[in-house]
Amino acid sequence: MARESEFLERSFGLAVPARREALGLSQERLAEEAGIHRTYVSQIERGDANPTLTVMAALASAVNVRLSRLIGEMESG
Amino acid sequence: MARESEFLERSFGLAVPARREALGLSQERLAEEAGIHRTYVSQIERGDANPTLTVMAALASAVNVRLSRLIGEMESG
Repeated sequence: MARESEFLERSFGLAVPARREALGLSQERLAEEAGIHRTYVSQIERGDANPTLTVMAALASAVNVRLSRLIGEMESG
Repeated sequence: MARESEFLERSFGLAVPARREALGLSQERLAEEAGIHRTYVSQIERGDANPTLTVMAALASAVNVRLSRLIGEMESG
């Protein structure tokens, strides 16, 4: 489970900046939009955090996609 | 954010037993399959928990669907 968990965290982390950069948003701006601390966004993008449902939904909303889509990009990325 | 968060937790909670019951699994059996404590599964199904990415992925795997699909059912449910 530990390794699988790390893999998931890394995969989700990669899906976020792909969307964020497509919108031309900085980490700081994304953090503001999502109402999450900037250092936490940075941790998530590095794959160093196991975000909750509500944090992931806030990030998805801030990059204008449904969470199911962001998770789908994580799964196929 | 608080109300939106509650709504999300409830919606995800509803998506889980829909899949679990379709497979004829008890909460206890699902908990075993997912490697999560039974009382935590019960909290999630009641919409009283904000599960992490890895917990949601373990639940999705235990009911044989991709997490993106389970989240999609949550969004459309």
